[in-house]
Amino acid sequence: MASIFTKIINGEIPSYKIAEDDLNYAFLDINPLAKGHTLCIPKIETDYLFDLQPERLASLTKFAQRVAKAQKEALGCKRVGVAVLGFDVPHAHIHLVPMDNEATLNFRNERVHLTEQEFMQTAELIASKLTD
Amino acid sequence: MASIFTKIINGEIPSYKIAEDDLNYAFLDINPLAKGHTLCIPKIETDYLFDLQPERLASLTKFAQRVAKAQKEALGCKRVGVAVLGFDVPHAHIHLVPMDNEATLNFRNERVHLTEQEFMQTAELIASKLTD
Repeated sequence: MASIFTKIINGEIPSYKIAEDDLNYAFLDINPLAKGHTLCIPKIETDYLFDLQPERLASLTKFAQRVAKAQKEALGCKRVGVAVLGFDVPHAHIHLVPMDNEATLNFRNERVHLTEQEFMQTAELIASKLTD
Repeated sequence: MASIFTKIINGEIPSYKIAEDDLNYAFLDINPLAKGHTLCIPKIETDYLFDLQPERLASLTKFAQRVAKAQKEALGCKRVGVAVLGFDVPHAHIHLVPMDNEATLNFRNERVHLTEQEFMQTAELIASKLTD
C-alpha cells in the first residue's frame, strides 16, 4: 500500500507544496515546530533515509538545500535546522525547521498552530523565493 | 582563528576518529545522546551547512551515509537519526545519533557518560564496519 507521503506526491492527499523536481517533493509539515517547517521526501518510497542509493540521497540533500535557502529568505530566520528521525511514517523525510535558537528543534515542543490561510500563504511565500 | 573542529581535523586537538576522506571527517561527540553519537564535518570551515557548495554538501551527505551504515552495523541500533542545529561551534556539523526510538534525538536529554576506554572501543568498532 502506498505511504501517506506517496499519496501526497500523487496528489491523492492535499499538501501545502513548496517544491518538486523529478526525484523529490517538499511540503509544509502540518504539525510544525515553527512556521515554515517543511518536509523533503524522495519520490521513491524508501523507509530509511540511509537505504537510499547514494546518488538519490545526494539529490534529496541538494533539493533540501534549495528549499532551506528559500525558507531563510522568506522567513528571515537565522538558520534552517535539519532532523531525520524516522519512527513515524515509513517513507524517509527530512525535517527542515526555521530556527532562531537551538531550542526550536525539539520534537517534544508544543506545535505551532496556523490557519489554513496561514499555511497557504507560508507555502506560497517560501515557493516564491526558490532559485535554481 | 581556526575553529575547534579544524583543530581536530588537523590533529591539534585529539578526537575519537571514525572516518576521513579528502573532504570530510567524522569523530565521536564527547557529549553523546547515545553511545556512538558521531559528528560529520566538512574539512572546509563553513559555519552554516547550507552555505556549503552543493557538491560539497552532497559529498558530506554521502560520507555521513557511510558512517551511519557502519554505526548501525556496529551498534545494532534500529536507525541512525540526523540533526543539524548549528548554534554552538561555527563549523557545520551533522549529528548522527544511533536510535531505537525517537525520544533519543532530543538535545535536552541527559548525556551518556562513557569512559575514555569506552569511547576508544566504540570508535574502533564503528570504524571497523566502514565499507566503501
